[in-house]
Amino acid sequence: MSIQRVAVIGTGMIGGSVALGVRAAGIPVVGYDAEPATVARAHARGVIDVAEADPRRAVAGADVVVIATPVDRVGRVVAEIAPALAPRAAVTDVGSVKQGVVRHGVAAVGPRFVGGHPMAGSERAGLDAADPEMFQGAWWILTPTEATDSGAYMLVTSLVELLGATPLALEPGLHDDLVGRLSHVPQIVASALVATAVAAADRGALLPLAGAGFRDVTRIAGSDPDLWLAILEENRGAIAADLDLLQRRLVDIARMLEDGRWPELRAFLADARRARLELFARPDLTGAPVTVSLPVPDRPGVLAEVTTIAGQQAINIEDLEIAHSTEGGRGTLRLVVAGAQRGRALADLLRARGHHAVVVDLGDES
Amino acid sequence: MSIQRVAVIGTGMIGGSVALGVRAAGIPVVGYDAEPATVARAHARGVIDVAEADPRRAVAGADVVVIATPVDRVGRVVAEIAPALAPRAAVTDVGSVKQGVVRHGVAAVGPRFVGGHPMAGSERAGLDAADPEMFQGAWWILTPTEATDSGAYMLVTSLVELLGATPLALEPGLHDDLVGRLSHVPQIVASALVATAVAAADRGALLPLAGAGFRDVTRIAGSDPDLWLAILEENRGAIAADLDLLQRRLVDIARMLEDGRWPELRAFLADARRARLELFARPDLTGAPVTVSLPVPDRPGVLAEVTTIAGQQAINIEDLEIAHSTEGGRGTLRLVVAGAQRGRALADLLRARGHHAVVVDLGDES
Repeated sequence: MSIQRVAVIGTGMIGGSVALGVRAAGIPVVGYDAEPATVARAHARGVIDVAEADPRRAVAGADVVVIATPVDRVGRVVAEIAPALAPRAAVTDVGSVKQGVVRHGVAAVGPRFVGGHPMAGSERAGLDAADPEMFQGAWWILTPTEATDSGAYMLVTSLVELLGATPLALEPGLHDDLVGRLSHVPQIVASALVATAVAAADRGALLPLAGAGFRDVTRIAGSDPDLWLAILEENRGAIAADLDLLQRRLVDIARMLEDGRWPELRAFLADARRARLELFARPDLTGAPVTVSLPVPDRPGVLAEVTTIAGQQAINIEDLEIAHSTEGGRGTLRLVVAGAQRGRALADLLRARGHHAVVVDLGDES
Repeated sequence: MSIQRVAVIGTGMIGGSVALGVRAAGIPVVGYDAEPATVARAHARGVIDVAEADPRRAVAGADVVVIATPVDRVGRVVAEIAPALAPRAAVTDVGSVKQGVVRHGVAAVGPRFVGGHPMAGSERAGLDAADPEMFQGAWWILTPTEATDSGAYMLVTSLVELLGATPLALEPGLHDDLVGRLSHVPQIVASALVATAVAAADRGALLPLAGAGFRDVTRIAGSDPDLWLAILEENRGAIAADLDLLQRRLVDIARMLEDGRWPELRAFLADARRARLELFARPDLTGAPVTVSLPVPDRPGVLAEVTTIAGQQAINIEDLEIAHSTEGGRGTLRLVVAGAQRGRALADLLRARGHHAVVVDLGDES
């Protein structure tokens, strides 16, 4: 799907990186930022082609609108730009929490809003940290819902792929639970470890003893507190539950230490080590294209259902096509994934959820 | 102080790195390892000059003996080698916990045992991870006590400097408290974060969402569980107390989230960010040599007292000399530090503890 023009609302680190990547592909970018000096700087540095002082003017005529503001401002922005959008425009965001944003987005923009979250960035912030290569090789989570329009979904997917990232669909709620555990709780823990370390009076000798491990563990504590406050507020339910789990685990470990239950403590350390090694043993993601086909009722929810079933097993949909039946009421959904093993796994998952999915083309391995 | 021969007991990552660094300086190294295959491999690869099958034979004739076994085996090793040591030999270790080790070391070897802890290494382990450059630019904590012989202390200091590291003296108990907070509790937390992350059933989508932050925070969870079990067991008192502080802080933060106390949560994040930035804003360690002089009673405890006063403020003693008075009973201790500011700070600290310290040579800045 060909993108002719992109609007970026919020030209900080992520928005600036999106703009640079899109421009590198020869597609014009219009930018807006709540801070006039930021958008002027983005224009002066060639991060965007056109700087607009009004977000509604920025989005007029764009095929894809990327909202790259802090997560707590997405709701206000989508409401403001909605009346100015081109009829076929897709709108996406880059927020780290998705349930609230998707609710606001769909309420304002309708089925052409597709929530997104690029799994890239750094503890740095602002336009100076923007990098056209930031998303190369990264995952980019998309959170379609029952309402999501397949054309808008494919436009956003095209943008993600153009930036070198791999799109992966997840339900907004599952996304928020997972980032709570994998990003938000670790952020709080890193800050709490720093606070605990410096709490005592004898700070003079802290630096020599703060080795590479402490530096690694606490690196993210150097992140922008305002950005993080917005994220924690937005995902507070999931985070509070996970903090609770973690702190109870720490109490358990303190008891093991006090009681001298060494085999139990060793098993905890060994299990965590194995889990971490397994977690990052990235499976081979290459393979010849394989097509999985299934008949689907002609209703919008199917796209979200099928893509998020795949997403939960980290199966990336390389390509997706909906062929509507001439008889009406039903169509055929064709999904392309990489590798025969992944194709069979996806077909199995879909059949387990009641879809009549079949692998129609096993590629080179058939 | 010139070192003629070094013995390394335990030729794993740290012991192997010490041996390689010492040999690079042209000093012969004799090695022993509880695992005969390991010491044979160290010899075959040129990590040590001579492999011995008996630790007592390995230490005979060495000026400095470095015990680089896991921390829970140091006590047994010092008891075994003590009868075979040369009369003027200094014995040190590299364990991550110091109170117990120093107690065992002094009991077996007497005033020529000096506890040590190089602040270097990695989550890798074993001889294959040995590197002659491992200690370049690193801090190396020494834990002299009242019993410590100044000649042995200076020999160990020479070894540390020969390896490119900066020696820093701390009381064993303060060292253990600090590493509990800065290394051992973070290690447990990293493992607990992995365990919490993988606890849920939906593991398929974990990898895409485990970003750079999660990788950083949990990297050390990949460390050797047996090494860590020995460390945690050895320092269990300090760790249990710090785990308790940390988990209560996490409960506080969960309450802030639940109650929506956003300004308080923001202050926590902002304070932790500032503390981390300040912690790693390494002060300028260069400067012309400055001498601080003080009269001292002729008793062994003074060395440990003075060096650990400096260590608590991370002031490295670049050189140290004890001139004994010809009248007996008293002598003069001359300490060299880098830079006039550091010299004045050290003199102030010593005066605050009742020593008549003066800056006798302000170097270029005087």
